Amino acid sequence: MKINKNYLNLSDNYLFSEIAARVKKYSAENPDKRIIRLGIGDVTKPIAEPVLDALTQSVNEMGKAETFRGYAPDKGYEFLRNAISESDYRSRGCDIEPDEIFVSDGAKSDCGNIQEIFDKENTVAVTDPVYPVYADTNIMAGRKIIYMPCTAENGFVPELPGERADIIYLCFPNNPTGAVITKAELQNFVDYARKNDSVIIYDAAYEAYITEPNIPHSIYECEGAKEVAIELHSFSKNAGFTGLRLGYAVVPKALVREGVSLNKLWARRHATKYNGAPYIIQRAGEAVYSPEGAAAVKKQVREYMENARFIRDSLAGMNYRVYGGVNAPYIWLKTPEGLTSWELFDLLLNKANVVGTPGSGFGKCGEGYFRLTAFGDPTDTKEAMERIRRL
Amino acid sequence: MKINKNYLNLSDNYLFSEIAARVKKYSAENPDKRIIRLGIGDVTKPIAEPVLDALTQSVNEMGKAETFRGYAPDKGYEFLRNAISESDYRSRGCDIEPDEIFVSDGAKSDCGNIQEIFDKENTVAVTDPVYPVYADTNIMAGRKIIYMPCTAENGFVPELPGERADIIYLCFPNNPTGAVITKAELQNFVDYARKNDSVIIYDAAYEAYITEPNIPHSIYECEGAKEVAIELHSFSKNAGFTGLRLGYAVVPKALVREGVSLNKLWARRHATKYNGAPYIIQRAGEAVYSPEGAAAVKKQVREYMENARFIRDSLAGMNYRVYGGVNAPYIWLKTPEGLTSWELFDLLLNKANVVGTPGSGFGKCGEGYFRLTAFGDPTDTKEAMERIRRL
Repeated sequence: MKINKNYLNLSDNYLFSEIAARVKKYSAENPDKRIIRLGIGDVTKPIAEPVLDALTQSVNEMGKAETFRGYAPDKGYEFLRNAISESDYRSRGCDIEPDEIFVSDGAKSDCGNIQEIFDKENTVAVTDPVYPVYADTNIMAGRKIIYMPCTAENGFVPELPGERADIIYLCFPNNPTGAVITKAELQNFVDYARKNDSVIIYDAAYEAYITEPNIPHSIYECEGAKEVAIELHSFSKNAGFTGLRLGYAVVPKALVREGVSLNKLWARRHATKYNGAPYIIQRAGEAVYSPEGAAAVKKQVREYMENARFIRDSLAGMNYRVYGGVNAPYIWLKTPEGLTSWELFDLLLNKANVVGTPGSGFGKCGEGYFRLTAFGDPTDTKEAMERIRRL
Repeated sequence: MKINKNYLNLSDNYLFSEIAARVKKYSAENPDKRIIRLGIGDVTKPIAEPVLDALTQSVNEMGKAETFRGYAPDKGYEFLRNAISESDYRSRGCDIEPDEIFVSDGAKSDCGNIQEIFDKENTVAVTDPVYPVYADTNIMAGRKIIYMPCTAENGFVPELPGERADIIYLCFPNNPTGAVITKAELQNFVDYARKNDSVIIYDAAYEAYITEPNIPHSIYECEGAKEVAIELHSFSKNAGFTGLRLGYAVVPKALVREGVSLNKLWARRHATKYNGAPYIIQRAGEAVYSPEGAAAVKKQVREYMENARFIRDSLAGMNYRVYGGVNAPYIWLKTPEGLTSWELFDLLLNKANVVGTPGSGFGKCGEGYFRLTAFGDPTDTKEAMERIRRL
């Protein structure tokens, strides 16, 4: 009986578990301190009213035999996949059909699971810094990983991989740097993948935060992307579903490798290892696309982006070098001279009672950086900036 | 770029997807026919009132900033893990602590994912017939599978594996046969695992359906089981959560292989690839353990078992040989002379408009058998039996 020894190549703790543990310890030792959390990217605004109404109504349906729903269809309810296809794709000129959409319990699960349909001998390219799930789940599977450095010099947009990459993970607007990619830059990656028979896993979890024009909201805006890209979406950040859990993956039918449809492979994985997002959550997800729902969640995004602007301006005023926060809910700041990322983490936790995320937790190139999120309560966010100013 | 070719060793469709497709086709061609579904094991009773109340209340909490909840703790909320530890274990004399419990979105996900923490070179033993997820997910991972035949002769309880097995999947009360295992028989498996350093994955999804005394409700009732067994639980069948999605896995701290704690490995997997069951569903799960909730869901189970009794008696009266249905919601019947499992499936679908599950879909030894479930509406269940009688 042997364990999966690839796990021993991981750092001991998942980054956000480690942060939670340090905060818990500090809180226990300092019960009188009020901690402001601008760390793990969790939202703070309640579920918007039109979405909550849909949730409440579907909960009532579950209490009556005539309207009770059991197992959901494998790929998710058609009402939700139709809404996604129409609002997130067709309205943007991307021809993605409902049966290319797989509803899930969140982008994190999809990020983690998607690699299963690929051979373990493939080489995986991820950015550095990177959302840990892309790298960790491929380490667990025993794949070779190459890193694409994202630095202030390249505007945190990576060059094409220097050596051959079979699978490329990209996330724009980026977590953790808040950087965006232009359509031309993204088209370069699509062209690389077409030439090299690679597959791009495109994480679009922060798409709703794009405020500037000419930034792609979907990789399928690029020519030929349906033949090379899988796109992942979340309801966590645009609609506050971190505690409700909903997401979806797009696996186009045109995406075929070694004569096999990846849409069919993912369908088999989905049907075999997963049993669908709860009906009531899918109804809540549908409401995000109603006119009232869409307006309400857009308002929340705008309010979060007010926090982003405030954090940017405040830190810049304190002579921090700041990035992101314009088309993304993340502010990526350079640590003050001589402080590592974890040193700044501990300093802010202990002296300002503010929790952020150490950049080095996202990779080597993240060392000397620190991530703050715009998802806090506005008053708390202002107080956090004031506390940092007083340091 | 290579795909995971292990997938090509799977049958084309997941069993229940294939059944859904055949039923959908028949319905489309015969829109006037009313189909009675006793096939996929989905429940039909609405969520019990005390559970629905908890769900409704927590939905309201999600609509207010003061009570809104985002990301859940990695392993699940303590209120739920405490309730599970107390009600499902300590009250039965099994010393399982809350931090040995991992809350998930259902037993199917856990069944599918648990194999990831093991090396792919392990040999896996499953029963034949078997719930397809155990076998399919190990085929996807490229593991060698050995089958333990379950036949009328051995009362559908397998012998110990004939060749060395590193991982053994057991499910009692059994899906699909409805058989149960005695404590002495289960202790044999635990002893085998202790001697051979094997790990048992024990699926206890149907535990609530046990009506007879001296049948183990948990593998941890056996001596030494904490050193060899992982146990999986569902809220789907005991509390009707097929559409709400909730389950849990128990990975005891005493379960150590090659010097590594499987509890820690599973914690790393859980934290990295999963983001927790929705808060509102965890609150609903907690209510299943309240005195009112427990009474209400027990009543539902009793009512389903009335269906089971009715199906057993009816079929026996028609001279079918029937198994199960006494400590399990499944009735396992021998197909009439000369009919394969799929032939009976098509006959019942086309002539009686009743959907069941062909035994051969669960494995070679299931050929010549057929599964009916007790989860239907009582009136429908009676009508289904009447339709079969008229064939």
